[in-house]
Amino acid sequence: MSAPQALAKTPEPPYYAVIFTSLRTDGDAGYSAMSERMVELGSNQEGFLGIESARNPDGTGITVSYWRDEAAIRAWKENADHRKAQHGGQQAWYADYTVRIAKVERAYGAR
Amino acid sequence: MSAPQALAKTPEPPYYAVIFTSLRTDGDAGYSAMSERMVELGSNQEGFLGIESARNPDGTGITVSYWRDEAAIRAWKENADHRKAQHGGQQAWYADYTVRIAKVERAYGAR
Repeated sequence: MSAPQALAKTPEPPYYAVIFTSLRTDGDAGYSAMSERMVELGSNQEGFLGIESARNPDGTGITVSYWRDEAAIRAWKENADHRKAQHGGQQAWYADYTVRIAKVERAYGAR
Repeated sequence: MSAPQALAKTPEPPYYAVIFTSLRTDGDAGYSAMSERMVELGSNQEGFLGIESARNPDGTGITVSYWRDEAAIRAWKENADHRKAQHGGQQAWYADYTVRIAKVERAYGAR
């Protein structure tokens, strides 16, 4: 998964976060190409606000995507290509994962 | 920051997530020791449910800690040692960061 260029610049809350934590299997098996394509596709969805992603050398990783509302998250979840990736992910790319949908209530930063 | 042994095992929602995304400065400057101590201290706070953390080679990272409720988050934020770390972080460890407080409404996993 390619690293974000910088931290996501999101609007004032409230908005939604999808916290995807995962443990990768060994080897690529098409993962990198799928991951890049999903970031590109997701970024073009209506209501997409930003994405941040990080992975440790041991294979544990976190991707947080930010969305205007629950309808935008639902539409992305039902996107046909994304569904194929979800199916593949359960089969080959992840040894374990958790998805959490959360409403961002407050946010503050360094500046 | 040491990687989690596994993904956090959290209870059924609702509960809270603190999403801390950051860009590290170059060099350690006491960061690793502080980070380990904060994970240890935080884990012993009342209402702590779990923590997940990942960092990319380029210095961008995400730590998500999970909490029973907002009161638990507030108590941790006001912890004296944690306040010192927060102060140090703004000065030396992070080139940029964002903190988001979010209510986890739904969650699902691989199994």
